[in-house]
Amino acid sequence: MKSRQLVEIAQQLRVDSVRAAAAAGSGHPTSSMSAADLMAVLLARHLRYDFERPAHPANDRFVLSKGHASPLLYAAYKAVGAINETELMTFRRLGSRLEGHPTPRRLPWVETATGSLGQGLPVGVGIALAGKRLDRVGYRVWVLCGDSELAEGSIWEAAEHAAYEHLDNLTAIVDVNRLGQRGPTRHGHDLDAYARRFQAFGWHTIEVDGHDMDAVDRAYGEALSTVGQPTVILARTLKGKGVAAAQDREGLHGKPLKDADEAIAELGGVHDVRVEVQPPPAARMLHAVRTGHLDLPRYELGDEVATRDAFGQALAALGTARGDIVALDGEVSDSTRSEFFAKEHPDRFFECYIAEQQLVAAAVGLAARGWVPYASTFAAFLTRAHDFVRMASVSGSGINLIGSHAGVAIGQDGPSQMGLEDLAMFRALHDSTVLYPCDANQTAHLVAAMAGCEGIRYLRTSRGASPVVYGPNEEFPIGGSKVLRVSAQDRLTLVAAGATVHEALTAADRLAEDGIPVQVIDLYSVKPVDRRTLREAAEHTGCLITVEDHREEGGLGDAVLDAFLDGRPMPRLVRLAVRTMPGSASPAEQLHAAGIDAEAIAVSAKLLVEHAVVR
Amino acid sequence: MKSRQLVEIAQQLRVDSVRAAAAAGSGHPTSSMSAADLMAVLLARHLRYDFERPAHPANDRFVLSKGHASPLLYAAYKAVGAINETELMTFRRLGSRLEGHPTPRRLPWVETATGSLGQGLPVGVGIALAGKRLDRVGYRVWVLCGDSELAEGSIWEAAEHAAYEHLDNLTAIVDVNRLGQRGPTRHGHDLDAYARRFQAFGWHTIEVDGHDMDAVDRAYGEALSTVGQPTVILARTLKGKGVAAAQDREGLHGKPLKDADEAIAELGGVHDVRVEVQPPPAARMLHAVRTGHLDLPRYELGDEVATRDAFGQALAALGTARGDIVALDGEVSDSTRSEFFAKEHPDRFFECYIAEQQLVAAAVGLAARGWVPYASTFAAFLTRAHDFVRMASVSGSGINLIGSHAGVAIGQDGPSQMGLEDLAMFRALHDSTVLYPCDANQTAHLVAAMAGCEGIRYLRTSRGASPVVYGPNEEFPIGGSKVLRVSAQDRLTLVAAGATVHEALTAADRLAEDGIPVQVIDLYSVKPVDRRTLREAAEHTGCLITVEDHREEGGLGDAVLDAFLDGRPMPRLVRLAVRTMPGSASPAEQLHAAGIDAEAIAVSAKLLVEHAVVR
Repeated sequence: MKSRQLVEIAQQLRVDSVRAAAAAGSGHPTSSMSAADLMAVLLARHLRYDFERPAHPANDRFVLSKGHASPLLYAAYKAVGAINETELMTFRRLGSRLEGHPTPRRLPWVETATGSLGQGLPVGVGIALAGKRLDRVGYRVWVLCGDSELAEGSIWEAAEHAAYEHLDNLTAIVDVNRLGQRGPTRHGHDLDAYARRFQAFGWHTIEVDGHDMDAVDRAYGEALSTVGQPTVILARTLKGKGVAAAQDREGLHGKPLKDADEAIAELGGVHDVRVEVQPPPAARMLHAVRTGHLDLPRYELGDEVATRDAFGQALAALGTARGDIVALDGEVSDSTRSEFFAKEHPDRFFECYIAEQQLVAAAVGLAARGWVPYASTFAAFLTRAHDFVRMASVSGSGINLIGSHAGVAIGQDGPSQMGLEDLAMFRALHDSTVLYPCDANQTAHLVAAMAGCEGIRYLRTSRGASPVVYGPNEEFPIGGSKVLRVSAQDRLTLVAAGATVHEALTAADRLAEDGIPVQVIDLYSVKPVDRRTLREAAEHTGCLITVEDHREEGGLGDAVLDAFLDGRPMPRLVRLAVRTMPGSASPAEQLHAAGIDAEAIAVSAKLLVEHAVVR
Repeated sequence: MKSRQLVEIAQQLRVDSVRAAAAAGSGHPTSSMSAADLMAVLLARHLRYDFERPAHPANDRFVLSKGHASPLLYAAYKAVGAINETELMTFRRLGSRLEGHPTPRRLPWVETATGSLGQGLPVGVGIALAGKRLDRVGYRVWVLCGDSELAEGSIWEAAEHAAYEHLDNLTAIVDVNRLGQRGPTRHGHDLDAYARRFQAFGWHTIEVDGHDMDAVDRAYGEALSTVGQPTVILARTLKGKGVAAAQDREGLHGKPLKDADEAIAELGGVHDVRVEVQPPPAARMLHAVRTGHLDLPRYELGDEVATRDAFGQALAALGTARGDIVALDGEVSDSTRSEFFAKEHPDRFFECYIAEQQLVAAAVGLAARGWVPYASTFAAFLTRAHDFVRMASVSGSGINLIGSHAGVAIGQDGPSQMGLEDLAMFRALHDSTVLYPCDANQTAHLVAAMAGCEGIRYLRTSRGASPVVYGPNEEFPIGGSKVLRVSAQDRLTLVAAGATVHEALTAADRLAEDGIPVQVIDLYSVKPVDRRTLREAAEHTGCLITVEDHREEGGLGDAVLDAFLDGRPMPRLVRLAVRTMPGSASPAEQLHAAGIDAEAIAVSAKLLVEHAVVR
């Protein structure tokens, strides 16, 4: 394809971006126009992709990190024939696949949902890791970034990770149009400022005029021939390029052009040039991965085992049975126990160091390539990656996240290390699964089962050892629960999970001695919740006390209510949870101070039985 | 003080770190020992601080970003006479001020809670900003970082911000002991690797042997004399320095030394040298700031005004009335409307660009210096700073956070831009305040009122215009609610907040036409919640329908339950919330698709009245 044709394609991408935004009455045409030349050259000269077979193992992968430039992406889809004119004009309408920001839920060519800035590159790193270390297919990962988003720390977590892993299959293209949403970026058109930073992190850098087709073409070629390090192409561009009234002007972010017809005329009018994208080379199918017998660890009743240990051992076993299981950790694998997997399957373990955003993003990238990732760190530190988990949920990404060191039960380390808000965070995600086992056998079974769920799956583990209360052959369906104590005379029901199950059992025994029999439910599946069992308990005892090592909002107590929100009569409810700011103390002292130990449970139960109210 | 004495002090800091951890049976002595020489020289030669007057305006500020090295900090407090031997030995015990990781809740010399890595430097940037731009006192900010935490993206958000603002009052000291928790860091003792990165971001860098007292002394001097840019001192150190059995060895992170007595002997035995820290220079008292009459904006009943507009206008007015109000934004001030404040009070506005972790950290730093920060971005993007907000809560920091573009009501931009989990995130924080106004006058009053709350305060605003339903003189106490419709015949109660208040009012009108009168409560204070009014409504109507533009977990629906969790009989409850993954669509289409518009409310209400259940 000649340069003149490239220019024509680029103008068509601009025109179609302007038209789509005009039809929608919203969107980001100016942010699309700055990158149109970069996109045209990539499509016509360097991308290897079969749009009819988006799952082709050798397809290159393209990530639009600046997700608001979706008009450009959809214009490109039209130029390659993946969508037609009619669909392009549905941009941002109800039911359209062409959302304001692209998502793989709806479009097969999108690798990951973007729109929260600074996430595309970290996920691209995850895909490139899959390509380099697992798939071993020569696909390249191209990530188109904005300049504004380089202010996000997650970009530098990605920069560090990519260079350290020598990801020469990864190319970042930065559309340096110098204007953010509100006004100029920190560094404007100072490409050197960005180049210095990327070079310092170990990247090959290329500075280029992003509107000079030949220069852009050469830059892509240089990226392709760079070995041993990732490349960033820093492209000087103009926002709104090609339309004088919009070009390089402030105040036009995220708005359709004022006079679309005039702009289209200025850009050379509507065209329908078809771009032929190079097909990928032939490649063997991926993921003809080994699947064998799952030999989960087995623990004896009464043994004392930490659920984090059971997680690590079960994950290692799962990795032995299934070749598609991979694990990642945020430099705390000795604490989370993912080190058990790392030791047995070092080729499928990814050390992400203390960079939780990149940890989750790498998991999303690996999942996008069909791998089944388990990413672990302290439950408290998963809050660091909340926005990445949120966007993974928008993507419909199937990732397993494990948060260790849950609750005040960790003891002396104090509140900075305690996962106390994690259940709330994970429950509030769309279609998430939230699991909180209390013993080792239960943990092992849930670690294996979570791989089969849709969407974000979260498993919460505990630091300290706890007694094994279930036999190794017990079953623990997702969405289920276990009734651990029940009698016809039960006066109320204790609902617990994880660490508080053991406290509830102790409390139940003491209450029974005092002539107050109570039911005990282990609600290990916090979401989805076992509505049937909870309703039966409500009918049976009329009153439920929930006990959790978590803040009172958004956790187990709120989860129980899911069983009763259909307007039917409610049981009486009492919620015991962590209401104070803990300091340092032993695990037992912490549970006592928080009012969630056996004693506190027994006191509340008695109050409720004797006085009908607790506070 | 002579070098020999410095050595003695450093050994004392090591010995006391070892002793404290040994007494506690846990803690991080080896991470303390690597930085003991750095700390000794700082205390004895460069820090200017009056430990008897921690609030002294000219005190330098010290932040232990590697918060797990708390034994070193507490050993230093003992060396300067701030705590005594007896207190040192309470380390990590129940009720002790000396927690596993330091917090300002308990210790007056601590600026911010640390223990989640990568947070001390960003908060230090906030304090340095206060010093440079607001306090205008010549204090310096010293931040002691670990090398592992340089992998956190938030460090590079801080690096970017500090250099861009020319914070030459800020010195980062990196204890490069090459060993993380699990094993070696990415760059080991390669100081140049870190220097290249910081230099690229615009910092002055000094590489030094962290155990050479004279070299460290010179490095501090060089940092003090560096003008126009922040300085980072990269100090090559050995973890466990001074004890052969521990020095530079893997596998000893976060554990007391095996033979403490032997280690103490090797370090020269127990000493009690007192370090005289230079006092700060005399300085005028800070915050003799102007407080004048608050002239809040007033809106006419029936006008259509977006609550984000009212926020911006009210914040600007508050800034005029109070000189201690400052505002920060993440490069979206044109959307959040904090630009109204920026235009009127540019000297007190801080542009943080697209770096939400640094945005919140800067607010925490400014609050630590007595300023009252309002930090704003899209509600969705505050999830990016979840761990920072969590740690701010551990600090007891008084910061105001504003999340705009709440819910599906934003319309076409789609799920990546929709705050749908923010109420859950903020409700689950200890002692937080969560506000969600539905009209402009209510917003204005709440913006002013939130400044007076303790802890984390969150205000949620909406993108689109909504009718003004309250007069400008109405009062909106925190913890209150408004009953907007009530009659003796009410069949049930609709509980709404923000965008859904208007839907609930429309539904109530339609239901009334159909002969089904219903009560409507505007629950603008989501936390604390108005228990009394909710209980009265329950007694009055027996049945509540909650309606929220938020995920069903952790938001308004769960908040309502706080009124009924004392074991007393519960009303029947139905929760309408966003259960699907939205795409792009108009605001009205979004509310309809999510089942939270007037029509959906009316349908649910009728089902409940006629059939007693909804699903």
